[in-house]
Order: sequence, then structure tokens, then C-alpha cells
Amino acid sequence: MELALNRPSKRAPEEMRPVTLERGVSKHAEGSCLVKFGDTHVLCTASLEERVPPWLRGQNQGWVTAEYGMLPRATHDRMRREASAGKQSGRTQEIQRLIGRSLRAVVDLKALGERQISVDCDVIQADGGTRTASITGAWVALHDCLQWMKARDMVKDNVLVDHIAAISCGIYEGTPVADLDYLEDSAAETDANFVMTGQGGIVEIQGTAEGKPFSEDEFGQLMGLAKNSIAKLVELQKLSIL
Amino acid sequence: MELALNRPSKRAPEEMRPVTLERGVSKHAEGSCLVKFGDTHVLCTASLEERVPPWLRGQNQGWVTAEYGMLPRATHDRMRREASAGKQSGRTQEIQRLIGRSLRAVVDLKALGERQISVDCDVIQADGGTRTASITGAWVALHDCLQWMKARDMVKDNVLVDHIAAISCGIYEGTPVADLDYLEDSAAETDANFVMTGQGGIVEIQGTAEGKPFSEDEFGQLMGLAKNSIAKLVELQKLSIL
Amino acid sequence: MELALNRPSKRAPEEMRPVTLERGVSKHAEGSCLVKFGDTHVLCTASLEERVPPWLRGQNQGWVTAEYGMLPRATHDRMRREASAGKQSGRTQEIQRLIGRSLRAVVDLKALGERQISVDCDVIQADGGTRTASITGAWVALHDCLQWMKARDMVKDNVLVDHIAAISCGIYEGTPVADLDYLEDSAAETDANFVMTGQGGIVEIQGTAEGKPFSEDEFGQLMGLAKNSIAKLVELQKLSIL
Amino acid sequence: MELALNRPSKRAPEEMRPVTLERGVSKHAEGSCLVKFGDTHVLCTASLEERVPPWLRGQNQGWVTAEYGMLPRATHDRMRREASAGKQSGRTQEIQRLIGRSLRAVVDLKALGERQISVDCDVIQADGGTRTASITGAWVALHDCLQWMKARDMVKDNVLVDHIAAISCGIYEGTPVADLDYLEDSAAETDANFVMTGQGGIVEIQGTAEGKPFSEDEFGQLMGLAKNSIAKLVELQKLSIL
Amino acid sequence: MELALNRPSKRAPEEMRPVTLERGVSKHAEGSCLVKFGDTHVLCTASLEERVPPWLRGQNQGWVTAEYGMLPRATHDRMRREASAGKQSGRTQEIQRLIGRSLRAVVDLKALGERQISVDCDVIQADGGTRTASITGAWVALHDCLQWMKARDMVKDNVLVDHIAAISCGIYEGTPVADLDYLEDSAAETDANFVMTGQGGIVEIQGTAEGKPFSEDEFGQLMGLAKNSIAKLVELQKLSIL
Amino acid sequence: MELALNRPSKRAPEEMRPVTLERGVSKHAEGSCLVKFGDTHVLCTASLEERVPPWLRGQNQGWVTAEYGMLPRATHDRMRREASAGKQSGRTQEIQRLIGRSLRAVVDLKALGERQISVDCDVIQADGGTRTASITGAWVALHDCLQWMKARDMVKDNVLVDHIAAISCGIYEGTPVADLDYLEDSAAETDANFVMTGQGGIVEIQGTAEGKPFSEDEFGQLMGLAKNSIAKLVELQKLSIL
Repeated sequence: MELALNRPSKRAPEEMRPVTLERGVSKHAEGSCLVKFGDTHVLCTASLEERVPPWLRGQNQGWVTAEYGMLPRATHDRMRREASAGKQSGRTQEIQRLIGRSLRAVVDLKALGERQISVDCDVIQADGGTRTASITGAWVALHDCLQWMKARDMVKDNVLVDHIAAISCGIYEGTPVADLDYLEDSAAETDANFVMTGQGGIVEIQGTAEGKPFSEDEFGQLMGLAKNSIAKLVELQKLSIL
Repeated sequence: MELALNRPSKRAPEEMRPVTLERGVSKHAEGSCLVKFGDTHVLCTASLEERVPPWLRGQNQGWVTAEYGMLPRATHDRMRREASAGKQSGRTQEIQRLIGRSLRAVVDLKALGERQISVDCDVIQADGGTRTASITGAWVALHDCLQWMKARDMVKDNVLVDHIAAISCGIYEGTPVADLDYLEDSAAETDANFVMTGQGGIVEIQGTAEGKPFSEDEFGQLMGLAKNSIAKLVELQKLSIL
Repeated sequence: MELALNRPSKRAPEEMRPVTLERGVSKHAEGSCLVKFGDTHVLCTASLEERVPPWLRGQNQGWVTAEYGMLPRATHDRMRREASAGKQSGRTQEIQRLIGRSLRAVVDLKALGERQISVDCDVIQADGGTRTASITGAWVALHDCLQWMKARDMVKDNVLVDHIAAISCGIYEGTPVADLDYLEDSAAETDANFVMTGQGGIVEIQGTAEGKPFSEDEFGQLMGLAKNSIAKLVELQKLSIL
Repeated sequence: MELALNRPSKRAPEEMRPVTLERGVSKHAEGSCLVKFGDTHVLCTASLEERVPPWLRGQNQGWVTAEYGMLPRATHDRMRREASAGKQSGRTQEIQRLIGRSLRAVVDLKALGERQISVDCDVIQADGGTRTASITGAWVALHDCLQWMKARDMVKDNVLVDHIAAISCGIYEGTPVADLDYLEDSAAETDANFVMTGQGGIVEIQGTAEGKPFSEDEFGQLMGLAKNSIAKLVELQKLSIL
Repeated sequence: MELALNRPSKRAPEEMRPVTLERGVSKHAEGSCLVKFGDTHVLCTASLEERVPPWLRGQNQGWVTAEYGMLPRATHDRMRREASAGKQSGRTQEIQRLIGRSLRAVVDLKALGERQISVDCDVIQADGGTRTASITGAWVALHDCLQWMKARDMVKDNVLVDHIAAISCGIYEGTPVADLDYLEDSAAETDANFVMTGQGGIVEIQGTAEGKPFSEDEFGQLMGLAKNSIAKLVELQKLSIL
Repeated sequence: MELALNRPSKRAPEEMRPVTLERGVSKHAEGSCLVKFGDTHVLCTASLEERVPPWLRGQNQGWVTAEYGMLPRATHDRMRREASAGKQSGRTQEIQRLIGRSLRAVVDLKALGERQISVDCDVIQADGGTRTASITGAWVALHDCLQWMKARDMVKDNVLVDHIAAISCGIYEGTPVADLDYLEDSAAETDANFVMTGQGGIVEIQGTAEGKPFSEDEFGQLMGLAKNSIAKLVELQKLSIL
């Protein structure tokens, strides 16, 4: 596996960055988690709101939604603040839609009741993989929010039906590798994000050829890396909520 | 394959809707194509602009970008006009970013020179699969724009390096099927869009579980359907530009 | 009438471009019409909505409103998409207010009941006279929407009380001419839009001196051309709905 | 002319409201005029700017533009402040485009040189006819701005080539009347704005049937009233700048 | 007091500009006041609205709010119109929040009942101190609005519990001076705005060092000037409403 | 001082919350500081940009500006994300203007050279006093950014001419107290923010009566508390940069 030595991070192809999941980091939120994938740090908070979107009213079910943001200097060069620019970029909207869909895939919205949980994922520091770190940490925040509700007899145990976690993989200098950091992501020929459940079901796949197209076989290798990585992330989630 | 009789469209699982590609439909645009996938109709125009985005200036290369829109009554119920709402939805931005990336995957931006080609994909009538129809038709508009430029000695033959086309596949009542129309898309458990080149290379994959997660095996079947469908679309593109 | 030879279109002063009104062009809309004044093509759709604007609620009457848009490459040079710019131009708003007022002039809003019909006029291709073509085609779409409603016993025959159609006239190189195309419009000294009913009543007049002011007499000649042209357009509307 | 007794204002059909033009009301502006048509009061200021719009650069000519606004409580009921709403209404944009076009019709833009004059028309109090009062007062502000420039040898006498003034006329209870106030305007069957030069040339006509359509003959009568009224307004302009 | 000779306005340090308060200047508003502090002229109108902000509904109390605006050529150089720019500047929002808070400090919101009074302060001409003139004039407009309501038995005498007025003071060339005009404000080392009641209570203080920091002692001198100035303004308010 | 026992925080009137200043918390920023005033946590980053605002170009001086934001769930109830709302609130703009002015008061902009330092203050968790914590932490981030520049010979030691820090004081149940937390701030009759330099000079004062007006004497007591608190904060800044 000598090719792996070429990764800027010096990691082996299948090696993830150190991942930590720190719960209870917010004084106010019903659930919260500071997730770190190496130098990528995302603060996830889950907020319970006693309302649902207008189009869901009276349907005896709840909703889980997500918003995503980045502090202006989370990145190498300062980016313009979206609140100052007056709108969220296409990228931001794409990511927060992805996070929301991913979380809803493991929530029984009927069992939630007519309420909304809003999960905010704010990138404090970025080094690649912010969307996959967000999903992984958001699950923990969501879990703790539901525990908070259960302690108040608002819901039962059956709202969260599985784990959900995500990883980015890519083809870097011809080799499929897991958990791209920023430098690797910039140089990768192909970049693919995978979102999977604790039982290994696939919820989202987003694969993009940055340079030349990739083959079905290469894609299969990326999926193999993803499955292993996500299984590890789910283990970490389980440990974190013990 | 009796299960296929359940498709609202009565099509066999692997059967696409009738696809037509009509060139030269715009008096003004350098290239244009009205693409129809059944009742989904998209007008694609390619516009040559003698400028590049600010961040590309002076780098001896061009750019291809795309914008996507929908007429307010392209859909079953009238949607609010985005120009009136004052902003493009997250969905719109996600789609136009996808179209732009897909086209750039088969363009040699150096060979294009310091110019931009803007491809507008406007949905005149929608019945599912608007983004995949857009990509398929946009390639024809782009091709004709480059022919227009070649006729004026602005570029050589080497700008467009391959075909690009796209198809949506999904799992409908447990069966993998190709080219979902709106009714099928609404009811599908899984929806996946594939963008591939004429040579069969994969450029984009977007797979989403709408209901329960899907397995790697199911995903493989969807990819198989996609490869066949896109091969047919590429044939149609070739015929259309004869 | 040798002067007429100077029109770029080679038309006689009183000669209109070929006009066609194609009904039923939208699968979804309750009424639709693709109107062509020569190379100016506008897709008009009429959408029934079971609501009225807030300020009309509970007043036992309906409303007819219009929105106008242009595809970015409907014009000779690509224009910025208004949805992307984040707002509608003053010109767009002016035109859609005009279309709405014109249609309401021939609708009995009481007879419509508490409902709104929204007419969208989207310019697919522009070559001058888009607002007058829009009004002329919008009437057909509105008519068909009302027929659709009548077939469902929602309204009676008395909602649409007359025809409405519109034409632009102008003074081109000193000669009053009818139905300006883009080249003529750009060069005309005076440009005037007329909106009239089937019975010849005037609903809107907008006359503008682009260069030197015009006289009352010249204006009278323009009005004469307009009356004749609009009478022909009304005949075409009648034929189209046979 | 007994019918005239029915005008809420008790004015005769051809009778205008008292009109005053007060110059030099702004400490800062190069030209200014507070125009009053009865209870309609508009503050017009002309501001010289040593720049032209981007599309005019390097063409050896200047530009005259106008902006229009209304104080929130200029009207009977308080209206939302446009700056707070975040955009100008279609009506506002329509009016300021009209004012700008009207002023440019009497300005030799070449003689102005590469500069812009921005005329702001802000309605302090509204009682109908704000756009026509604005045009009439804006001419005075523009005149004084040009005098200010002439005193500094920036321009010669030939920039302003004629007067421009405007009046609204309408059909009120069947009778054509001049200079509608708010109550009359609300009740008029037809409302028409006329913009004419000092020599009687027509620059803009905007006629709208609010209720039933109007005839060519009725329109002729409105134009007759307008010509007389505007001639009087031009006399007042001449007196005001003595 | 020779140092005072250095003020551009030639005023003594404690000398205010001539202040006038003209009531009843708006035909439509329930209360209005044109306030002049020298060349700073602000039109204040108070508008009664039979509604309260959503968060106050059903709480048996009313609300007083304020909006602030500047005509584009109120200033030495023309400023961009905020309605055209599409948003209110930070400065505008800061000022209108200050005016609203100041007025509410002397209003018994319970006694007002479930209604809102909106006070608009529009700067017709600016020469420094627009926010303090606004507050001083707004009180008069508010007072007259409440008198209008009392005349209709909508409120009693106890809604307005005190006067409120404001002044800016500053340190100009080392000397504390009152009521800065624009030139003085631009050159002052320190600028402080004071809002006080008729009984001398302090409601708002905003002090800013433009150049070098100021000392507690200097600040005390500014406050002394402010108390005297505001006492005079309150006397003027009392005279104006006799 | 028994009254102090009533403070929700149980602190003595002059007692501040525990304050910490943690430097170097951002991998990317040239200077950064996580400042905590009790449960109020603000991440401050200073970003060097090799450009100045347009109106400063060519004037041989730099600029320091600040932006302020709050994570949506930094507060007790989730607030709407400003990027999603499409604009910054008046409060946000007011605060970021205050931070910018405060920092510039201790920077020699000439010595900085033609560059801009943007300081972002993002509230991770809010419990009152976010603007004063922001200013106090921003100074540290700014200091470190200048050290970073000095290490690269971009500036000398003379850019930062003094410390700057800030504290909020208020009158709580009749007693002047320092460093209000959220509960105290909500209940305080008067709230005043003070910004002072290391040498004790006053840079900004913002005092507001929330309920009844305050007296000059009370204000004097608040200033006394502020001077002591800020002196302590400056000591902490000195220790933090050792």
C-alpha cells in the first residue's frame, strides 16, 4: 500500500482522521454535539420547536430539518458572511437539504408527534468533509434531544429507528481513499459522499468526477471504503451515548 | 417481468419514455435544443459570451456554466415564479450546479479559449426527470454552439471531448425501473440520477432513499439500467447532430 | 406607399406579421395558448387558484392577475435571469401590470366567484411587441380556463364579457406603421401600444416619443392603424376558439 | 356645464387646482422645486453627478435620470416604507421611468457632456396626480441645476431645449375633467396622463379605462383638456424662473 | 468664551441653533410636526394603526414604533435611495430603534390600549443632529396624535407621561459645545447624544470618541450642556402645544 | 452590600463573571481568541486582507472592521438564522459597528499600511454581554494578527496603541451592578455599555433606561463600576498575551 504514502495526511487509504463526538456542549440546546473529524470541527445543536411547517399541520406527524453554516474564517481564506451577503449560497442549501434528508431517514415522524426538531450544523473550523461530519454529529444531537423529550414523557423510545453517519471517499492519485481532508479533496479526481444507517442501508450517495470520469469498478471500491468507515463512525456514536 | 405492469406509465422496467431532440429552435441562440422525455419538455439554449468569470481572468481558459428554471405552470399546480419570490430555491441551485458540472466534464476548457458558454435549461412542461432531460438536451445545444464557433474559426474541433447524457432510475414497488415520470418518482422508494459520458464513464451519481434505505445490490441494478439508458440517449444525440 | 419599402420587414405600413394562436399547448394548465406574432413567441397559461388576494377576501368576487417573464436567451443577447438577479425589473413589472389590467377589463369579477386566475406570459423568443402578443394570447388562455370551469359547473357563460387584444404601432422614418418588430421598434421615433376590446372600446393607450415629440394628428393615425389591427386579432381569436 | 358641480372638488371640468412652484427650497441641491397641485406636494431636487451610467461611458454624452418616492404617511392611510420592505413597488418603478423619459425628451444629452443629473421627486403629501406634479416640478429643478452649471461655465444655454409639463385628465361621471384629485381619480371611469412640451408636442400618453372602455372621441376630449392645462403649467414654469 | 469663536457656526459653546416646531403640517396624519434645528429639517408624522405587533397581541397594551429616512438629496452629496438599494443601512436602523425607545420611555403603553402609533421621521434637509431633532419633533407629533384620539374618546389624558427631547453635544477643538451642526460634527473629537425627559431623567446616552478617548470629566461637561439644552427644548415643546 | 444577594447570579454588585481569554483557537486565522464571560462564549478571529475599502484606496492607510453573528441556538430559544432570513437585524448591525469603532480607536491606521483586518465575533453561546465580551476578545485576536504580521516584517510594533475592553453595567433592583448576565439584563431598569482603553480613556458609552429614566448620579456609579471592571479586563488581556 505504498501509494498511500502520497496522501498529504500520510494516512493509509482506508484510514480515517481521529474522530471525536463531544456531547452537551451547549447550555441552551435540547441536544448538542461538537464533532471533530481531524481539523474539521462542527457544532451541532438540536432545537425542539412546538410547531410544524405549514404544509404538515394537522397531519399527526412531526418534522426534522437542518440548517448549515460556516463561520467566515472557518476556512483558509476568509469567506463573505452569508448573512451579510443577504443569501445562502447554492452549496449551503444543497448541504442543509442533504443533512435534513439524512436525519429524516432514521426518524419515525409519526412517533415524534406534531413538533419540529431543527438541527443546526455550524462549521467552526473547516478542513474537508464538513457535510459528512455534520451528519455524523447531528445524529448525536438529535439523539440527545429525543432523550430530553423522553425524560419529559413527550415521546417514547421509538422515534429514532437507527443510526445515521456519513463519510467522503475519493480517488486520490489513482487510489481510492477514505475521509478526504481539504488538500486531498482539492486534488482528488473523484469525490463521493456516502450516508448510511447503522444496519448498513444506503440513504444517500453523491459521487462526482472532478477530473476524468470514474468507472463502475472504482465506484464499487469507494463504496467498500465507505461501508467500513461508516461502521466505525456508528461504533463511535454508540460509545458516545453510553 | 409482470411487476412492471404496475408502473403508472405501463412501461417495462427498462423502458424509457419517447425521447426527442429538436435542434435550432431558437432564432437568437448560438445553439439550442428542445428536449422531450415524454411529457417533460425542456428548452436548452447555449449562449456564447466573450468574457469569463472574474476568478478565471487571464488564465487562458474558458468556462461553461448552466442555469435552470421552470415556468410557473410547468407543473401540475402553479408554482411561485422565482423572479417574483426574489430568489432561486435550493432545488434550482442544486440542479443548475449539477448541469454545469456535467457539461464541463466533457469540455476542454483550454481549447475553448477565454470565453464563457452559458447554457439555459428552462422547463416548459414538467413530468419528472427534468434535470436529466436538461443535461441530455444541453449537450446538443452546447455542441451546436461550438459548431457555430468553429464555422467562424473561433475554435477547433477538439473542445467537446465526449457526449454526456443523464437518466433517473428508481425502485418502484420493489422493482428497479428506468426513466421515472412524475407519478413514479413520487411513489418510488429510491431515486437515483446518473450522468455518464459516451464512453460509459461516470460523471455524477446522486442516489437518495425516499423511504427505506437501499442496498448495495439494488444500487448496482439501478446503475445497470442507467448504463443502458444513457447508451441509448447518446445514440439519439449522435443521430440528432448528423 | 413606397415609403413602406423602407421597413426592415418589407411589410406595408398597415401590414401585421403572421399571427398564430395555438391552444392547449400545456398538459397541466386549465387554459393555454402559444401566441406568435412573427418571430415573437409567447407561451400563455391560465391557472385557476381557489383563493383570492387578501384584500379581496369575503367580497364575493374573484381576481385575474398576470405575470410576465422572458427566458434569458429569448433576446438577441442573453439577458440576466431575473430569478438569479433576485428581482423583477421595472419593465417586467410594468408589463405584467398592464396585462392584468387589460384582462380584468373584460372579466366580470363577480361572476367569477371567489377565485383567482393567474395568467403567466413567458416569452420564449422575442422580436418586438411581446406585451401586445402576450395580451392577445392571454385572452385565449383565459377563455379556455373559463371553459374548463364551465364544463365543471363552476361558472356560467357570463364571466368573459368581451375580447381583448393589443397591438403596437409607431412612426418609422416618418410613416405610421403597425406591429413593430424589434428592428423597427429600436429605430421608431414614436412607439404606442393600444389595447382594445372586441367592440372597439379602448382599454389602454401607452404612447411614447423616443425621439422628437409627436403631434395629435400623428397620434390619430396610429390609433387608426391600431383599430384595424386589433379588429383582425379579434377575428383570429374567434377563429381559434371555434 | 352643470355636471361639473358633481366633482368632489367643486371645480369646473377644465379647472385645475391651484398650482405653485417654489424654487430653491433645498440648501444642498444644485436645483430644487417644491411643486404643489392643490394638496399634492412634491419636493423635486436635481443633483449633478460627475459620472454617467456604465453603458454610456466614453460616448460624449450625459444622462438624466429620475427617482420617485413617497413618504409613508403622504397618503390617507400609512403605507409601508419601501426601504423597509426591501424593494420599490412596480408602481414606483413605472413612475420614475416615466419622469426620466419625460425629462430626457427636452434635454440635449450631447450638450450636457459626460455627466448625470439625478432628479429626485419625493411626495411629501399626496392627493392625486403625483406623477404629473413631479414632472412639472422636476423641470424647474432641472432648469435651475443647469443654470447652476452654466454659472460655472460647465454647460452653455443649449442643454434644455424646451419645457415639459404633465397633467392627468379623466372621465368623471361621464364628463371629461382636468387635474383629478384623489377622490376623483378613485371614482373616474378613465384616467389618462399626458406629458407635453412647451411647443405642444406630445411626449407621453398613458390612458387607462378603470371601468368600461372609452371611445376615441372621449379620448380626444381628454387630450384637448390636457393641451390647455399643460399650456397653463408651462406659463407657470416660465413665471417661476423669471 | 473666546474659544467659541472657532465654531464654524460662530455660536457660543452652549448656544443652540434656532429651533422651530411647526404642528399640523400633514393633511393626513393624526399628528405631525416639522422640526427645524437650524438647517436640519425633519418631518415627523404619527400614524394610528388599529393593530399591534404579533408578539403583543392579546396583552392589553399598545406599542409605539418609529421609522427614520432621509431624502436622497437631504445631504451635501446625493446619497443612494435606500428603497432602491433594497435595504436600510445599519445607521438608519440604529437611529429608528433609538427614536422608538425614546418615545416609549414616556408613554404608558397599557393606557394606549391595543393599538400602535408609528412615528415616521423623514429628513428633508440635513445639517447634523438629525436623530436628536427627530426625537424632539416626534414627541410633538405623538402628542397631537394622542390629542386626536382623546377627542374621539379613544384614550384618556394619561398616555403621555412626560416630555422627551434630545440634543447632541461634542468636544470641538477641545471645548465642549452644544448642538453640533454637520461641519462641527465632522470635526469633533467626541460626539454624544443625550435623550432626557421633561423632569430631567436620562433615557439614552450615546457617547463616541471619534478621535482620542475622552475623560469622565469631559463627559460630565457634555452632560451639563445637554441638560440645559434639553430643558430649553422641552420649553419649546410646551409652547408649541399651547 | 446585602442587596447584591438578590442578583440571580448571587454575585456581589461589583463582581464580574469568570473571564477567560483563550488564544490560537483557529487553525486558519492570523489571530484568534475564544473569550468567555461566564456562559457567554464568543469566538473572535482576525483576518488579514490585502485590500482596503474602495473609499480608502490610495490614501496610505489601512482599516479595521468587524462583523458580528450569533449561532441560531446560542440563545435560550432558537433564533432564525440571519443568512436564511436574508438580512442582518438592526441589532446585529448596531453591534458590529460598535465593535469596529472600538477597535479602530486603538489602532494607528497609517502604521497598518493599505490593508484591512476583519475581525469576526461569532457568539457560540449567549448569556448576556455578548457585545462587551466581543470587544474584549477581539482586541486579543487583533493583537495576535498584528504579531503575525510583525513576524513577517509587514508592520512594526506601533500599530496597536493601547488596550480596549468593554463591560456592561446596569441598575438591578435599584443597585448598580457590573457585568449583567441575561437574566439580570432582562430585569435591569437601566443598562449601560462602556468601552474604555487601557489608560482609562472612554471610547464609547451607551446607556439606556429600560424602565424609568436614570439620574446623572446613578450614571456616575455605573461609570465607576465600569472603570474598575475594564481595568481588570485589561489586566487579563495583558496576562493572556504574555
